[in-house]
Amino acid sequence: MKIIKSIAQMKDEIKEIKSKNLTIGFVPTMGYLHDGHKSLIERARIENDVVVVSVFVNPTQFGPNEDFEKYPRDEKRDADTCADSGCDILFMPETSDMYQGNYSTFVEVFGLTDRLCGASRPGHFRGVCTVVTKLFNIVKADRAYFGQKDAQQLAVIRRMVIDLNMDIEVVGCPIVRENDGLALSSRNTYLSDNERKQAVVLYQSLQRAKELISEGEYEVNTIKNEMFRIIKTSESAKVDYIEIVDNINLKPVERIKGEILIALAVKIGNTRLIDNMVVKI
Amino acid sequence: MKIIKSIAQMKDEIKEIKSKNLTIGFVPTMGYLHDGHKSLIERARIENDVVVVSVFVNPTQFGPNEDFEKYPRDEKRDADTCADSGCDILFMPETSDMYQGNYSTFVEVFGLTDRLCGASRPGHFRGVCTVVTKLFNIVKADRAYFGQKDAQQLAVIRRMVIDLNMDIEVVGCPIVRENDGLALSSRNTYLSDNERKQAVVLYQSLQRAKELISEGEYEVNTIKNEMFRIIKTSESAKVDYIEIVDNINLKPVERIKGEILIALAVKIGNTRLIDNMVVKI
Repeated sequence: MKIIKSIAQMKDEIKEIKSKNLTIGFVPTMGYLHDGHKSLIERARIENDVVVVSVFVNPTQFGPNEDFEKYPRDEKRDADTCADSGCDILFMPETSDMYQGNYSTFVEVFGLTDRLCGASRPGHFRGVCTVVTKLFNIVKADRAYFGQKDAQQLAVIRRMVIDLNMDIEVVGCPIVRENDGLALSSRNTYLSDNERKQAVVLYQSLQRAKELISEGEYEVNTIKNEMFRIIKTSESAKVDYIEIVDNINLKPVERIKGEILIALAVKIGNTRLIDNMVVKI
Repeated sequence: MKIIKSIAQMKDEIKEIKSKNLTIGFVPTMGYLHDGHKSLIERARIENDVVVVSVFVNPTQFGPNEDFEKYPRDEKRDADTCADSGCDILFMPETSDMYQGNYSTFVEVFGLTDRLCGASRPGHFRGVCTVVTKLFNIVKADRAYFGQKDAQQLAVIRRMVIDLNMDIEVVGCPIVRENDGLALSSRNTYLSDNERKQAVVLYQSLQRAKELISEGEYEVNTIKNEMFRIIKTSESAKVDYIEIVDNINLKPVERIKGEILIALAVKIGNTRLIDNMVVKI
């Protein structure tokens, strides 16, 4: 596996790959890789000739009071995980190379981004879209792999790719969970032992929502109230949002119908966790 | 010359060209082509294997009270001009194909766009950057040709291409002028005979500025005042702005130094015209 840190060198490498007509699968990440990322890399390995993983903690998608500084980093372990999962090129650009002195350009998806995490994290998706556009332009992949855990991110990127006529297939991959149901996240590392135990309420509330729907409960408010009740069984939990929305345009629905996304963000102590489930009826 | 109206068909065509390793020169326009556009197409013809011209009157770069509806259009004449100038593919996408129902994504360059035309035309450069990104993604050219007449547009696109790591060379081409100095523009067609005669004051004021600088006058305010005086010799003229700025970051300068851009926008009657000159000392 090659490790490349410079954008210029990465572009040369991609040119070389393209000249051989090889397909490229790309997994953009912020590093501190876990089994969720691994599943994306493995999927990319199956579907493409060359697999590129990027590790870049992107400053423009963090708010001023968010965890950019303390976001967990472990380059050595990330490199091992990538190599083990079948990655060919690990791209770890420097912030100063990605955002040079006079950097001024941003990509923004409107509408989809004013709700859910977009409402709690203004500017977040603008940062995501900007860095993803940059990475797409550098890596020129045929397919890009994103986890369904960041459901809104996935919807926003799908929209952006269509709108800007980007030639890349966006592949959404299932959430990977711990044994007790907690969705894997690099931020789980922030949790104390006690908080870690309590964090299972996110998954439990989603499971209960799914169960209610399968029993014929289609009233969104009823379902949300029940989810709220379950989450509040954790004393450290503070609900940021619980929303049930259309899975494509992310607009809230009043009654369950078609393909919907049940999404929530909850603070466990100081750690903001998100999770979601797609339900089709 | 092929005329293509569908984005999907255009993408297929480009794929075919790319598979033969041919280079592509691209001239994005809003149509109603004049000798200025022709000079871009001819330059592209010299420097590339395949020349693509797009004609698309882009609604997102017009303000609500601007001339989108009445912007001059002549598809037949544009096709003839393209064919005569060595264009291989004329791309004329439909608005409904470029901006589909749920369209939500915009590209914006900040800083560079808050002055000059950006100040008088809020949202204009956002529309330009968005449509140019889309066209770049569709056409995948090696080089794109823009006229120096839209000096701020050129600076903004150069910035965007660097910032978003786009793999395209932006080529700026000299302003083409009428015999009396008026810069060619599709909007010149709006001028009455009398206004057309008066419109020469834009060029005259730029020439005078250049002359003053060559005589050693480096005080920007003195130069601007003299330009203003010349423009006001036309009774139909109303100055939108006269600015002398750094040619890269477009920031106003107080004294002439290095490479500067003298730019102005003037309404002659109801027609807003722009012109500029780059001066190096």
